[in-house]
Amino acid sequence: MRDEFGFIQSIIPKKTYQSSLITGIGDDAALFQGNSKYEEVICLDTMVEGIHFKKNTMRPFHIGYKALAANISDLAAMGAIPTYYLVSIAVPKKGWNDAELDEIYQGMNALAEQYKMDLIGGDTVSTSSELVISITVMGRVEKNRHLLRSNASDGDIVFITGCLGDSAGGLELLLEKGLDYSYNEIEKTLIQAHQLPSPQVKMGRILAASGLRVSLNDISDGIASEANEIAEASNVKVVLEYEKLLMSEALLTYPNEKRENWVLFGGEDFQLIGTVPKTAWSEICEACKKAGQTIQTVGYIKKGEPQVILKKENEEKVLAKKGFNHFRTEE
Amino acid sequence: MRDEFGFIQSIIPKKTYQSSLITGIGDDAALFQGNSKYEEVICLDTMVEGIHFKKNTMRPFHIGYKALAANISDLAAMGAIPTYYLVSIAVPKKGWNDAELDEIYQGMNALAEQYKMDLIGGDTVSTSSELVISITVMGRVEKNRHLLRSNASDGDIVFITGCLGDSAGGLELLLEKGLDYSYNEIEKTLIQAHQLPSPQVKMGRILAASGLRVSLNDISDGIASEANEIAEASNVKVVLEYEKLLMSEALLTYPNEKRENWVLFGGEDFQLIGTVPKTAWSEICEACKKAGQTIQTVGYIKKGEPQVILKKENEEKVLAKKGFNHFRTEE
Repeated sequence: MRDEFGFIQSIIPKKTYQSSLITGIGDDAALFQGNSKYEEVICLDTMVEGIHFKKNTMRPFHIGYKALAANISDLAAMGAIPTYYLVSIAVPKKGWNDAELDEIYQGMNALAEQYKMDLIGGDTVSTSSELVISITVMGRVEKNRHLLRSNASDGDIVFITGCLGDSAGGLELLLEKGLDYSYNEIEKTLIQAHQLPSPQVKMGRILAASGLRVSLNDISDGIASEANEIAEASNVKVVLEYEKLLMSEALLTYPNEKRENWVLFGGEDFQLIGTVPKTAWSEICEACKKAGQTIQTVGYIKKGEPQVILKKENEEKVLAKKGFNHFRTEE
Repeated sequence: MRDEFGFIQSIIPKKTYQSSLITGIGDDAALFQGNSKYEEVICLDTMVEGIHFKKNTMRPFHIGYKALAANISDLAAMGAIPTYYLVSIAVPKKGWNDAELDEIYQGMNALAEQYKMDLIGGDTVSTSSELVISITVMGRVEKNRHLLRSNASDGDIVFITGCLGDSAGGLELLLEKGLDYSYNEIEKTLIQAHQLPSPQVKMGRILAASGLRVSLNDISDGIASEANEIAEASNVKVVLEYEKLLMSEALLTYPNEKRENWVLFGGEDFQLIGTVPKTAWSEICEACKKAGQTIQTVGYIKKGEPQVILKKENEEKVLAKKGFNHFRTEE
């Protein structure tokens, strides 16, 4: 394996995008110009081989792409414009070669280019067992325009920004048939949803630009879990109507029970769930239509004990705050 | 072990320090107000059990304290005021209990309090083998006042900010006699230097405030390595005079050869090495004296091929860009 110096040289970006960048990789820390018109947004997440990804369902390119996508999704959920990212990779002494590491960075880079994000720091270290990727992302949002989970209020409309369950469906296919199977077109859409998810930055920006009281959360752990986070943070009841949840054509080819599990608890679709005041709903829909973005009412907010109620076929049940980790069950 | 929710609850700070903070832990990402008067400084570093720390030489409190200290040291080397940090910990399923994890955070917290830094994010995940800690730190420095490694120029004075080699000396003691040995006072100073190092934030601030052309680098990997980084970044020759390097009373009790190795290559002292124009030297010394800070000339900058020359007893030799990793030799 290359030494650390050679590795760092290989990941220094050939070009940069952000005009606020002063110094990226190469000194003790990166520097960028602050801006009083904006709020800075930052988060750090770690993904571990065997828990968040496995080589039998994700190529290194997908691992990098999706790791960054998951972090960008957190920025989207704040209404932010992505700006910078830093990556720390702990590489096992066995089982990963230089070409695969490069491919992980290429995966991140493909997505970063799309959002004009600059890679400005991080490091690489070695471990004895599994690959660990820590990514810090930064973004910014106009002053006072950030969108919190705690903004929901009685009477609000609950919305989502796209189909749910596809990623979980794709994972099931991959676990069953592997990376090299010759999938049909329908299956490919599910697999792509799992391997190359699209964070909803554009939607976050539309909602932030509206200036309305919007609550927002990204659906990384399944809508059941994320809706509960909004309920808790806003101290309200979230009512979800199952029949309104969006499912792809591909997902509709699967049996009901499987589908429901994926849609409610699957996670990793990286759509957004949020709320807006009822009076603003038509305005938001209009803005989304203009931008070619999907938005769908899936329920409403009620006063009361913070919890999530799922309405399905005229029955109501409390939806627990749980997601499922596909790999954990195997341990 | 607690679930992730319980763990996050336990690490949410009870109070915050930074007035720019809008939202810390608890939403998809943290938010703080940007400021056009400042440049934002950020870095991410990862420490792995068995490579960067071991339980037989560091208690969990020390591990947390030192991990954050190493990152703050990078901020100091830019001339920045520390502001925020985010921590991601990957915890092995065996070998670490909740109390030890708490202690790691207590160690970080002790140092963070000293610098009024707020913990604003991160996560905890599980691994199969060793503990991995990733820390992102942020700071800020007045516009155009940041200090880069590339600022050194012909004729500059090279300085350091304190004693070198103590941390390496402390580690040798700990490897030999363990954590529970009844050390004498001299030994204790070395052990403290290893377990609870002090980043040189105050010195970085004095140098940034000076407005002078200062190059700066923190000595994390040993002065040989760090001086080479300045030589390369500034495209100059760094001449170090061995006899001028500062050593503690404690270190002077060790044989010459051991001492030299520790001082030049030991690392983890987290002092700063830098350069200032010769004409500004007395001004800098005066400012340090006023602030009760140590600063010591240890050499000068010359034109020429980027490298480090060590002068010792009237002999000159090229000092290679190497540090030593005390654990790596055991692998």
